[in-house]
This record gives sequence, structure tokens and C-alpha cells, in this order.
Amino acid sequence: MDFSFTDDQRQLRDALRGYLERENSFSARTASARSASGWSESLWRGLADDLGILGVGVAETAGGAGGNAIDMMVASEELGANLLVEPFLETSVIGAAALGAAGGREAELAAIVSGDMRCAFAWAEAESRFDPAAPATAATRTAAGWRLDGRKAVVTAAPYATHLLVTARDGDEPALFLVGADAAGLSLRGYPMIDGRRAADAVFDAVSLPEAALLLRGEEATERLCDIATAMLGAEALGVMRVMLDDTISFTKERRQFGQPIAGFQVLQHRMVDMYMQLELATSAVYRAVLSLDAAPAERARAVSAMKVTVAGACRFVGQNAIQLHGGMGMTDEVRVSHYFRRATVIESEFGSADWHRPRFAALSRAA
Amino acid sequence: MDFSFTDDQRQLRDALRGYLERENSFSARTASARSASGWSESLWRGLADDLGILGVGVAETAGGAGGNAIDMMVASEELGANLLVEPFLETSVIGAAALGAAGGREAELAAIVSGDMRCAFAWAEAESRFDPAAPATAATRTAAGWRLDGRKAVVTAAPYATHLLVTARDGDEPALFLVGADAAGLSLRGYPMIDGRRAADAVFDAVSLPEAALLLRGEEATERLCDIATAMLGAEALGVMRVMLDDTISFTKERRQFGQPIAGFQVLQHRMVDMYMQLELATSAVYRAVLSLDAAPAERARAVSAMKVTVAGACRFVGQNAIQLHGGMGMTDEVRVSHYFRRATVIESEFGSADWHRPRFAALSRAA
Amino acid sequence: MDFSFTDDQRQLRDALRGYLERENSFSARTASARSASGWSESLWRGLADDLGILGVGVAETAGGAGGNAIDMMVASEELGANLLVEPFLETSVIGAAALGAAGGREAELAAIVSGDMRCAFAWAEAESRFDPAAPATAATRTAAGWRLDGRKAVVTAAPYATHLLVTARDGDEPALFLVGADAAGLSLRGYPMIDGRRAADAVFDAVSLPEAALLLRGEEATERLCDIATAMLGAEALGVMRVMLDDTISFTKERRQFGQPIAGFQVLQHRMVDMYMQLELATSAVYRAVLSLDAAPAERARAVSAMKVTVAGACRFVGQNAIQLHGGMGMTDEVRVSHYFRRATVIESEFGSADWHRPRFAALSRAA
Amino acid sequence: MDFSFTDDQRQLRDALRGYLERENSFSARTASARSASGWSESLWRGLADDLGILGVGVAETAGGAGGNAIDMMVASEELGANLLVEPFLETSVIGAAALGAAGGREAELAAIVSGDMRCAFAWAEAESRFDPAAPATAATRTAAGWRLDGRKAVVTAAPYATHLLVTARDGDEPALFLVGADAAGLSLRGYPMIDGRRAADAVFDAVSLPEAALLLRGEEATERLCDIATAMLGAEALGVMRVMLDDTISFTKERRQFGQPIAGFQVLQHRMVDMYMQLELATSAVYRAVLSLDAAPAERARAVSAMKVTVAGACRFVGQNAIQLHGGMGMTDEVRVSHYFRRATVIESEFGSADWHRPRFAALSRAA
Repeated sequence: MDFSFTDDQRQLRDALRGYLERENSFSARTASARSASGWSESLWRGLADDLGILGVGVAETAGGAGGNAIDMMVASEELGANLLVEPFLETSVIGAAALGAAGGREAELAAIVSGDMRCAFAWAEAESRFDPAAPATAATRTAAGWRLDGRKAVVTAAPYATHLLVTARDGDEPALFLVGADAAGLSLRGYPMIDGRRAADAVFDAVSLPEAALLLRGEEATERLCDIATAMLGAEALGVMRVMLDDTISFTKERRQFGQPIAGFQVLQHRMVDMYMQLELATSAVYRAVLSLDAAPAERARAVSAMKVTVAGACRFVGQNAIQLHGGMGMTDEVRVSHYFRRATVIESEFGSADWHRPRFAALSRAA
Repeated sequence: MDFSFTDDQRQLRDALRGYLERENSFSARTASARSASGWSESLWRGLADDLGILGVGVAETAGGAGGNAIDMMVASEELGANLLVEPFLETSVIGAAALGAAGGREAELAAIVSGDMRCAFAWAEAESRFDPAAPATAATRTAAGWRLDGRKAVVTAAPYATHLLVTARDGDEPALFLVGADAAGLSLRGYPMIDGRRAADAVFDAVSLPEAALLLRGEEATERLCDIATAMLGAEALGVMRVMLDDTISFTKERRQFGQPIAGFQVLQHRMVDMYMQLELATSAVYRAVLSLDAAPAERARAVSAMKVTVAGACRFVGQNAIQLHGGMGMTDEVRVSHYFRRATVIESEFGSADWHRPRFAALSRAA
Repeated sequence: MDFSFTDDQRQLRDALRGYLERENSFSARTASARSASGWSESLWRGLADDLGILGVGVAETAGGAGGNAIDMMVASEELGANLLVEPFLETSVIGAAALGAAGGREAELAAIVSGDMRCAFAWAEAESRFDPAAPATAATRTAAGWRLDGRKAVVTAAPYATHLLVTARDGDEPALFLVGADAAGLSLRGYPMIDGRRAADAVFDAVSLPEAALLLRGEEATERLCDIATAMLGAEALGVMRVMLDDTISFTKERRQFGQPIAGFQVLQHRMVDMYMQLELATSAVYRAVLSLDAAPAERARAVSAMKVTVAGACRFVGQNAIQLHGGMGMTDEVRVSHYFRRATVIESEFGSADWHRPRFAALSRAA
Repeated sequence: MDFSFTDDQRQLRDALRGYLERENSFSARTASARSASGWSESLWRGLADDLGILGVGVAETAGGAGGNAIDMMVASEELGANLLVEPFLETSVIGAAALGAAGGREAELAAIVSGDMRCAFAWAEAESRFDPAAPATAATRTAAGWRLDGRKAVVTAAPYATHLLVTARDGDEPALFLVGADAAGLSLRGYPMIDGRRAADAVFDAVSLPEAALLLRGEEATERLCDIATAMLGAEALGVMRVMLDDTISFTKERRQFGQPIAGFQVLQHRMVDMYMQLELATSAVYRAVLSLDAAPAERARAVSAMKVTVAGACRFVGQNAIQLHGGMGMTDEVRVSHYFRRATVIESEFGSADWHRPRFAALSRAA
């Protein structure tokens, strides 16, 4: 709560912030999102080559920066504030964590560090909804390794990923597989998200995989991976909300009504105080979740689910008020707050909405 | 409240609904919104020629259908449910009301009925925000008539309007002028709204107008026009919310989790009941506002402002829950609920947010 | 919604209001509530003799005023505004409706009109909670009539009732019995409610009843009786909220902070507007529910449950804000708003909380 | 956040909890509150003699336990959980802090430790409302010392206090005076609070005080004292909410509806999760505020005001849901949750409501 960053973490944050301001201004970012491909390869390469940030969570032995969860949180918050569309979360958080947990895999980890690998996380299914530990997609053992059959929905970043991280059921047990985006039998149908990123529905029709495609197995390994992803999504949300609050304060100081800046109206001041307080509560919850990622499974899951409920509420409150306090301008693509609002709306349900995390939290609280 | 439509009104509703389902399916509508022009001339012509709906509120003496406020409400609700991007509200509600109140103007009213005129309502300004009765744009008398100087912001439908209805200040008094979109000295800068419609910022640089450009004058006339517009926007919101609720119920019946349709989860059922109740409350408020449009100014304004506060809250509650109950799919452009959600978000602040209407209501309540 | 009372109804309202101001001032009412008996026999007699209000809903053939549901609503609202502790709802609404529906029973109805009978409605049970149609209390046929065995909880007004209206199960079917408060085998344990009224837990240990004790039978008859009671409780709530709002407006006009009346603070003004709007929404819902009491069962139940959800929310919002806007004074027994707040808190859950009525509404909506 | 108590603090908590369970059971506590005097002298003596808790925050040099803010927080939470009516906050928090800050005053501090002194804090005024730094009560210099003139409202514990701590204005500057309850010219009018404690309105009519009556002077000293009081009130609120949540969980496990414990209903489970989360957020905020009591004034005030807003919201949410989830029983004096609910309602506005602390927080945030 009275969280103090180390000097290194402050340097990381400042370097990343400065770099993104220069290299991925809001107009550059929007141009990437609206381009045919939906992302910027040169920015991605720059994040790897100029900053080395893509390997922030990869062990030094594999060529990464060997950062801890706090380092990753710092980076995620800045990338959120920049509204980055490139798949840092999917690649450098989820991909790095899965490959790291799998053991070995130095070549693949090096490809993350260098920017050669871009991941997408294919876990959600229309049938099983948000439960990552119970996929309907089937993994069947074959002589050569594995065969995957099933469907995944709303796989963000899939249209520009080199690899998919796919959850599938081996018998009763969930498992995670690394699948090349060009695998035979894998077909993708892409579409835009409301926040400007791209996603795809994926069909796995007898996709053949080598033995080594299996990265993780078991409910706990799957849940841990999702908890890490959710925690870093929470950090990203902090950056998104920070920009919305800053923009709203600036806007209301500039605009005038009845002869005074609208920021002077008591009702709007109180609203902005409440936005600020929501952001502070969300910040505390994210820190706590990040610090619990290496704790016992139940404690970790509890902190992450509590955080997601808090962050979801904050995203809704801060986002809705930010856009409405901008008045008519907030309803146009002209001001960036409308884009941040849409990102906040997506984050609210990403990796499970409050409706999903509340009973998970409750179940763990009863067990405790 | 126990509002009963007449047979004619039911026929109007059914005819309009059927026509729009055939002629402006969701994919056709989205194609129009994404086209270069941002609207469909053929649909507009069809609404005029096939249905005669553009003149629903125009007097029969001017070739219109001579409908009353309830007829217009019925039409507005259906057009809202269709997520129409074409400027019915600006033209057939605001334009027809302004020209009708001005007296005479048969030729222009006929152009509304025939579909030849498309209006945009240029009233909002960055400086004066939501107060339509106190524009900073100046109208100056000239030998030939009038000269307009000023700037208007977020003029929806301006990029495809033939005429702008412009509020301006003549001395201390607000007034309304009809300006051709091709007037010398008028420049527009267009951009998309987050709900798929187009808007523009407009600059009036010594725009010369004939005497007859003046349509209305005085605070009461201006406020009445905005109240009519706001009431019909409220009706439109009912249609928007109805579709979101219907789609959410259908979606939650189809999707399954833990072996049962997610509609079976008590928490989600209660949420949908609350959405339904919000829609019912909004419906009562809209009926009441529409029925008060011909009442005394204070009573009319009070009912309209109370309605807007209620509708704004309902739009937020129904919209947010609709999109979140759709899970990940709700976050994509693939399902129509995400488009309706964005329209509901815009409606929340259009013609004044709850923060604007609440003190207006309060001031009128104290006066009473 | 644009509900217009008849002249008779306005007269009834004004006469009742004037009478209560004279005869049951707030200090007189509080003295009654705090007296050993917890009520005032002289006030009760006055309501019967001076106003004839206890028979407002009793047929003229039985000596009553033959009023309709609107008349009863008008009376209930005024009695709510007076914070009456005497059992009008239990006697003149529930008792009169049950005896009226039973047919015959002129002597008992006359005792209601004259003030000789005071009822309590014994329906809630610790086990079956709010479901009046499924009591665990058992009614067994005997040679002489009936035998009752069971327990009822929180029977308001029981400590000063002459008769209890008791729901019990005859086989699978719910039924309603009239039981004298002095019946052998009936024991009561009284205690105060937080709103100043008295209640009791009742034990029925082989209570023998004559054949004629049976008033009503069947789920529909029981539900209808509860719906009537709930609708009139809603009307009572309107009176309670009206006083809280009036007192809050007065208080904030008198009190000063930083040199101006606190009513001048924008944030508090908006709060009071929201309180007012909640009261208006609740009023619409109560009218609608009252007007549906003779409609088909499903429509009636739906309107009543929707109303109770709306009224419960309004009671919480208006009550909480009323007491908090009174500052420290609101937290004392000195100002009457703290008593109205406690009554509003009780009403929120009386005859089923929002959590109970929401699924009931949902079930009926699906059936429709 | 991951706050760890020391062994001593855990011992303090356990000892206090055990003692209160034995010596101040809920029925004993309620008997004290309802007694003629409204408090229990023997319990107060026991807290001093058996536990030494009244001097928890008094320096060891003055005979106290020399505890820090965390120790006081631990004690306050337990006393809140016990719903203590005796004036620990007024005496052992506010009185001890004021006398400690004044310097010297060993005799008076010793009287706090021994239980001989009981304080009340007379700061609120009808005119100046919640602003402790701008009292209207006047302090005038005299030859002998001071003269006080003014009125204070809702002075909790005043009816059984030996001393009043009175804020008054010396010229432009606020100051704090220690006044014996039997001082000539001081008159009290006592009344009950809705939470069972007693309060009084106090009139100071030319009350003569010796020079030494002046304890503190200046805005910062006054604000600091109020911030300490508010922080400990927040700790007390944690105890109050903990009991309400525990009682609600137990109650919903015991009660059955439709054949299952009502705790099994998903909607109620989610509600209880939200109650739990509100309590966790409030806990974090209280810890942060307590830890900031010795920080720079702006940081301290900011943390305390943020905490009060958070705690006020939590008190309302937890309190309202606790009482409503108890159904009809929650509305009686029979179950203790109704008493805790009333205490939570009072705490919401004590030492300034959210409406007061929100702009204070905003002003400090802008200054930062």
C-alpha cells in the first residue's frame, strides 16, 4: 500500500514512458490499430531491441531481464497508459510464464526476448465460458505426440500471433499446448474488438502436435497462469484509468460553463474525487494481487479474484464518468478518452467478469 | 403508464418495424455507417416514399401525416431499435418542429416530407456546453438579413445534412436560423462518433443569411425545441434498450456454463430483472415527458429533465450489463449488442447529461 | 401517473391529515409507542368514531364506507406520513379484505368499522421465511372444526390485537384462519420493533378453532391478500418518504455552513433532487400496483412485486440520505426524521424484500 | 495491507476480546445503555483496573501503557465489536491525545488511566456544522484566564462525562479547552442517540476557566486531534462491521427457504462476498490512515479523509445488507444486528460524513 518502487523500477517506468511517448503517440497507436494488419511490427521490434522490455519477465539465463512480478507490473501499467495494441500481455506475460514454468524452452524464451515470437492465449470457449480449468477442446495422445480438436472464441491478438497457447483437456485434466499459427488444421476467423485490438475465433480440426507442444498440465498450473495474466491485466487497467482521470481533470479545467471552468462545479469535483478514490482502491488491490502470485494457491487466487472485482468496478466507474464528463466530445473518436473508455469496458470482463470472480472468491473464503 | 396505443399507432409501429427489418437489417445498417458517406440515401428515400414516415410530424396542410407527439414517439422508438444512422431526429423531429413553429414554410416542410431536406442541429458549443439558450455564436443584423459568426461542436449528421439549424444570439436573445450546408463562410470538419454516426465541428465565418433564415426567437422557443428533441431521443433510447435486453436474454439462454444455461444462474436472472425494471421506469418517464410537450413551459421542462435523468441512468445500467453479460463476445464488433451499447452511451449525454438536467429540474421544482 | 384524485378522495386526505395533526402529533405518537401498551386506544376509537376511517374498505352493507383501493391508498399514505403505530394495515386493510373475501361475516366487519376488532397478521415463519403460500403451521380437521399447531415470527401488532389472522397448511393447501388473541393454546412473546411498533412471536399449541374460523383457502387467495397488504404498505411508504424529504429540505435551508445555507451546496441539491425523483418513481409504481389489484393474478402479482422492488430501493435511498443530511442531529431521537428512517428501514423488508420480489417478478415475466 | 500485528498487539486484542465477552455481554451492554445513567461505572472501572486499557495511549511517564497508534487501533476495533457505550474514544483517544499534546498534565493523564476522568468532546455546532477548525463558540481572555460563550450540539457522552473538551475561537484561532462538567454557567440537555448512547446539547454562558484550561491552539492542532479521533472511529467501525458480517453469515446458514439454507442462494452469497470485500477495503483504508497519523499534516489529513469516505460507504453497505438479510428478525430489538446497524448508521456521519470529507480530500489533492 505504501508501496515504494526500487530505483531500477522507477528507471524502467520512466524509460518505458518516455519511449512510448516518442515512438507510439496516440495517433501512431491509432494508425497501427486501424492498419490492415492491426499492429505495428516496427514498434514491437523497438520494444525488443531498444528497451529489451519483451523479456522483462524472462530469466537471465534465457537472455531476459530476469525481472520479478513487480517489474512486470510496472511495465504493464505503462503499456496500459499507452493503450498498446501489440500483444505484450499474451507474449511477455503469459507466454513467458508458461514457457518458464515448463522448464527448458530456452530457444522459445529467446524468441520472446528478441521479438520473434508473438503469442495469443486461446482459452475461452463459447461452451465453457470463463472457466479456464475445464476446456471442452480435446487433446488426444497420438504416436507422434498430440492431436487437438475444438473451438476457441475471442482469442485476442490471434490475427497477428506467431503462436497460440491453447488450453485443452487431456482426459479430465486441463493442459496447455504451444501451437504454431500456421499449423495444419488450425483456422482463424478474425474480427475487431471494440477497443481497437483484433481477435479471432479459432477452430482446431485434428491439429497434429509434437510431444514437446505440451507446456503445462493440471488445474493448478492452468489457474496460476490465468492468475498471473489477470494480475497484469489489472496493472494495465491502472494505466488506462490514470490517463482517463488525468484527461478528465484537464478537460474540466479548460471548459467553461456559466462563466467558470466546469471543474469548479462541486458536483463534478466530487465525482472526480470518487474517480480518484476508485483508482486508489484498485491500485491497492493490484499490488496485493501481484505480491501474492507466489503465495499458496488459495491465497493467490483469492487475492486475484478480489482484485478483479475491485478493478472491474473501478473501470466501469472511472470509464463511464470520464467519457460523460467530456460531454459531446467524449462521444467522438476525436478525443482519446473515448478509446480508453472502450479499453476499460473490455478489461471489465477480460479473464472473467466480477460475476465470475465473486463466487470464486467466496468458495475460497469458505474453504479458508 | 397503462398507455394504450391507438390502432393507427400500432399499425404505424408494425409497418415501420417490418420495413426496417427488411430494408435496414443490422448488416445493411452497419454497411451504411461504414460507407464513405456514412449513411444510405436509398434507405432515406424509402422512408419517405414507401412509408411517408419522414413527415410523421408535419401538418397535413404541408403534405405531412399530421401525427401528434405520440405518433412521433412510436416512430422514434422503432428507429432506435433499428439503430438507424440517418437523421430522422434532426430532420423529422427537430426540423419539422422548428419549421412548423415558425409558421408558413410549406416548401421546406414539403422537402422534409419528400426526403429532399436533411437537417443537422448545430447548437452545442465548446464554451457554452449544454445550454441551448445561451449560445456564444453571434447573429448580427445586416441590410440583407443576418450574419452568423461562431463555432459549433459535435453537430451530429452535419456531414450529410443539406441544412443546418443553428442557434445564435441576437443581442441577449437566442434565436434559431436555417442555413444551407453549402453556405459561403460555413466550413465543416467531420469525424465519426463512437456509435457509428458522423458529426462535424462547424465554423461560421461571416455567413450571410437572408431575412427568412430566422425561424425562431427567444428562450422559451429554443427550450421547447430542445425539449421536443430530448423527449424523442428518450423514445429512441427505449428502442435501443429493448433490443439490448432481448439480445441478452436470448444469449444467456443459449450459452451454457457448468452444464446449465447461464440464464439459469440466479445472480444473472436478478440482473436481467433489474434491467427490465429500469426499462419500465424509463418507459413511464418517456410517456410522461411526451404527454407534457404541450403543457406549460415549466411543467414540460420538468417532465423532460426528470425523464432524461431516468433514461440516462437506465441507458448506463442496461447497456453496461447487456454488454458484460455477453462475455467476451460482447467486446467484439461481431455481436450487435456492442453497437447498441455504444449508442446507449452516447444517448446518456446527448441533449444534456443527468448532471445538466438534475439542476434544471431542481430549479423548476423550487419555482413551483 | 397523471393520477387525479376525485373530490371525495381529496376530502378524505385532507380530513385525515388535519385530524392526525391535531390528535396524533409527533410527540403524542411517540408517547403512545413508548407507553406500556405501545399504542393508544383513544386514538383508535377516534379514527373509528370521528372519521369512520377504519371501515374505509368495508362494504356499505356491513356498515363501512365502501371505498375502493384508491381510497384505501389515500388513507394509507396519510397514516404513513403520520407514522401511526396503531394496526390500520393489519385490521382495516388485511382484516377487512380477508373477511370481505370470505363472504358474510357482517358482525366481524362491523367490529372493524367500530374499532372493536384489532387484527394482527400471523404469516411469517422462521422456516418458510417470506413465502406466505407455503406455511409450515399445520391446520388439522377436528370434529369441532380445526386445530392449529405451529409457530409464527415477528407478528406485528400482535401484543395489542384482539384477533390474529393466521396462515396455515391444510394438507398441501394454504388457508387463513381467524383466531382470538385469547385462544387457549396460543402464547405470545412480545418485543419492540426498531420502528417503535410492537411485535410478537406466536406459538400455536393445539389451538382449537370452530369451523367458521376458516376465512380463505388456496394459494391464489393467500397471495391476493398479501398483494393487497403489500400495495397498501407501499402507499404508507410514500407518506413516510414525503415527510423525510420535506424535513430534509427544511433542515438544509435552515442550517448554515461557510456562511450559506447548506441547501445551497450543489452536491446536496443534487442529492435532494435524486431523493425527489426516487419518490416520484415509487409513487408511479404504487399507483400502478393499486390499480392492478383487481386484475388477473399474474398481472397483479407482477405489478406488486415490481412496486415492492422500486419502493424498497426508494426507502433505502431516501431514508439514508435524509438521516445523513441531518448530520449529527439525524442520529438522535430528538428529530423525527430518525424515527421515519427506522420505519423506512423496516418497510424495505416487510412483506418480502427486493431479494424476494425480484425472482417472483422474474418468474411471472417468463410465464407471460 | 499485509499488516502483521506484533505478539503484544495480538495479546492485547485477545485479552480485551475475552474480557468484554465475559464482562460486557450483549445483554449486559444493552442493560447499561437502557439504565437511567446510560453507562456502567463498574465496567469502566474494570477496563481501568483489570486491563489498564484506558491508558493504552498515555505515556508511561504518566502511568499509561505508552502504546502507539496501532495499539490504540487494535483496542478500538475490539471495543467497536463489543458495541461499548462507555466513552473510550472521547477519553482514552481524544482526551489522552489532547492532554498529551498539551505537555505536562500528568495528573489529568493519570486520571484517565485510573478511570477517574471521563471526557466528552464538544466541538460540533449547529451553525458551523462539521468544521472543527472554525467554531463560533468564543473564548475571551479574562484576568483569571478565560471565559467561554457559545453552544455545542450532539456532544456524545456528555451526560456521563466528568470533563468536556471544548473547541472555541480565540480571535481568529481555534483552541481547545478542558472544562469540568460541573462548571458554573455550563448547562446540558441530554437525550439518547439512535445507537443507544447518550448525548447532550451544551450551553456555555460566561463559563469562567483558569489559565490552565487551554490545552491546544491553532488550526493544525485541532485538525490533528480530529484526525486521530476519526482514525480510531474508523477502527471501531471495523469491529462493528465484522460482527454484522459474522452474524449475517451465521443467520443465513441456519435459516432455510424452499428446503435449503438461505446462505445457499447465489444472490445472497454474492451479496455477502461484496460485504466482505467492503470490509477488506475499509480495513486497508483504516490501517493506512492510522499509519499516517504522524506524517505531514496534508498527508495525514488526506489519508484520514479518504478513509472516512471509504468507511462511510462500507458502513452503509454492510449495515443495510446485514439487517435486511436477517429478514423480519433484523427489524426487531431482539437480534443484536439491529443495534450494530444503528451504530454503523451513526458512524457514517460522525466526525464528518462523506460529503464533508470528499471536498477536504479534493482540496488536499489539488494542493499536492
